[in-house]
Amino acid sequence: MARSRLTPERESELYEAVLDLLREVGYDALTMDAVAARTRSSKATLYRQWGSKPELVARALRHNKPVDLSEIDTGTLRGDFQALLERTDDCQMEKDSALMRGLAHAVHDNPDLHQALRELLIAPEMNGLAEVLGRAVRRGEVDAGNPALSLVPHMLIGAFVARPLIDDQPVDHAFLSAYVDAVVLPSLGV
Amino acid sequence: MARSRLTPERESELYEAVLDLLREVGYDALTMDAVAARTRSSKATLYRQWGSKPELVARALRHNKPVDLSEIDTGTLRGDFQALLERTDDCQMEKDSALMRGLAHAVHDNPDLHQALRELLIAPEMNGLAEVLGRAVRRGEVDAGNPALSLVPHMLIGAFVARPLIDDQPVDHAFLSAYVDAVVLPSLGV
Repeated sequence: MARSRLTPERESELYEAVLDLLREVGYDALTMDAVAARTRSSKATLYRQWGSKPELVARALRHNKPVDLSEIDTGTLRGDFQALLERTDDCQMEKDSALMRGLAHAVHDNPDLHQALRELLIAPEMNGLAEVLGRAVRRGEVDAGNPALSLVPHMLIGAFVARPLIDDQPVDHAFLSAYVDAVVLPSLGV
Repeated sequence: MARSRLTPERESELYEAVLDLLREVGYDALTMDAVAARTRSSKATLYRQWGSKPELVARALRHNKPVDLSEIDTGTLRGDFQALLERTDDCQMEKDSALMRGLAHAVHDNPDLHQALRELLIAPEMNGLAEVLGRAVRRGEVDAGNPALSLVPHMLIGAFVARPLIDDQPVDHAFLSAYVDAVVLPSLGV
């Protein structure tokens, strides 16, 4: 796809508008018409640039998450997790948490959205996390055969989804940091 | 509320219909009209028995989860978790997982539903889990000050939500059992 027609600033603006709409109305009610109206662009431009609604949404979500996990390398696994948390502020975490809630059901009903999310958002995050964990294994911090290694994403998603549901509290640094220390690191034997 | 007007069989039938509708159309599109039509009852009866849609949905969900966690007492924490898993079949787990996905967003937008779910479903489950964990503490299996004790629900919800999202697999016994052994028990120091 030729993305060169849009400046990076304009592309950013479009993605922000898609995410705002997603938080406001949810995935099902988000139409290409609404995106076009909100961003004062034509539907033809949207389809030419992104091909489809699932891909546009997945790209917008990926744009929202510019942290490259594999760049973090503090020398300890705990340090890497702390560095990762410090890169996201509390307000952004609450916004991410809202997006996750809004998408959990939509993903199940929309195989195209699920596939786009897997390719554009989930796979890169998994690869970054795998690299951080792989370094911990190579340093000898975590046993290579530890079965919790492949379950770290599940633990972290649980923290995001359950915090508002169970505790009626927003997800913030203090909670995630305590969760990493109490759950993630001990399950990895760190 | 006078529930004596309905036989237990009829009440069961109504709850099953509510859960079926919930899986089919989601919370927002589930109307009291649809429930009345599906169950061939009058809306007046529904409102007299349950007061409101959030309460009806919460009661139906509670009905779906008749396992009383506090009744499980095998003598070890691992045995208690295994016994808990054995009480639910794989098909029921997938159905529960679908309900959880459908409700995660609705709960956030509907404070009444969230409150009804907290009182009727979340609080009793938390109390049952707290009893199972409390016995493990009294037996000396888990340290009373272990910070993971209050995070077990978060770990388990993560397993349910992330399994289809990340691994594209349904939640089943084999996965949950491996997750308990790899994540929940090690974080508790068992």
